[in-house]
Amino acid sequence: MKKNLSKIKLQRIDNHVNFVATNETDNSILMDGSPAIGGKGNGVRPMETLLMGVAGCASIDVVLILKKMKQKIDDLQVDVEAEKIKVGDVSEYKTINLHFTLSGDIKEKKLAQAIDMSLKKYCSVSKILERSSKITSSYTLNP
Amino acid sequence: MKKNLSKIKLQRIDNHVNFVATNETDNSILMDGSPAIGGKGNGVRPMETLLMGVAGCASIDVVLILKKMKQKIDDLQVDVEAEKIKVGDVSEYKTINLHFTLSGDIKEKKLAQAIDMSLKKYCSVSKILERSSKITSSYTLNP
Repeated sequence: MKKNLSKIKLQRIDNHVNFVATNETDNSILMDGSPAIGGKGNGVRPMETLLMGVAGCASIDVVLILKKMKQKIDDLQVDVEAEKIKVGDVSEYKTINLHFTLSGDIKEKKLAQAIDMSLKKYCSVSKILERSSKITSSYTLNP
Repeated sequence: MKKNLSKIKLQRIDNHVNFVATNETDNSILMDGSPAIGGKGNGVRPMETLLMGVAGCASIDVVLILKKMKQKIDDLQVDVEAEKIKVGDVSEYKTINLHFTLSGDIKEKKLAQAIDMSLKKYCSVSKILERSSKITSSYTLNP
């Protein structure tokens, strides 16, 4: 059976801790270290990519599930807030909350159900991160 | 004690599954869904952010550890290759290999040691992902 391989390339771009990471469709992100090691805030920090990943993954699910439920989304935003703790030499997210803000012709019950289905069943990134973090969600509908 | 909070904002930018995710220093990445759900390859896919994260995290460590060891790095690149498998409804990376390519005035033993220290001890993203993936490494020095 053919293996399903994902490939990422990362290149150092200066004399410090700045890098550009590129995927197979040539989309790239700038990465930087934390201020503690001299990072200047001109990139995404590696641990932050995890939060971006779970927000993106859950949002894709929520959009697709609500579409199937014939709900009309005008706008979607997610605010992720995560508590970072030190465990020995490394950092971990103790908690990760995803707050969804949606507007549109959407029934509240359907939205709650879509978020729940994503985080509990379909979102791969969430399933990976929940082994080390408590992942929760909340929402605002038509603020 | 003050909590150490990390915040990410994600905004839907079209009528499909394209989003922009932004960190607190205003660095953003474009995200897109997989081709299977209509993604057009104009962004990073959520699962790919994890691979970018581990590559960035380990590279920062390797740069800093080699600096401490008085090694001179001229160039650093990492090629990540991960095998994605389906586990029920979600995807997982069964394996993740980071191949480091460095050039510079670097002793091979020090490079091997730096990579090992990062993945086994200091890289937070690696420590999180190793709960669901087998993470390995390899390297080429002065190709």
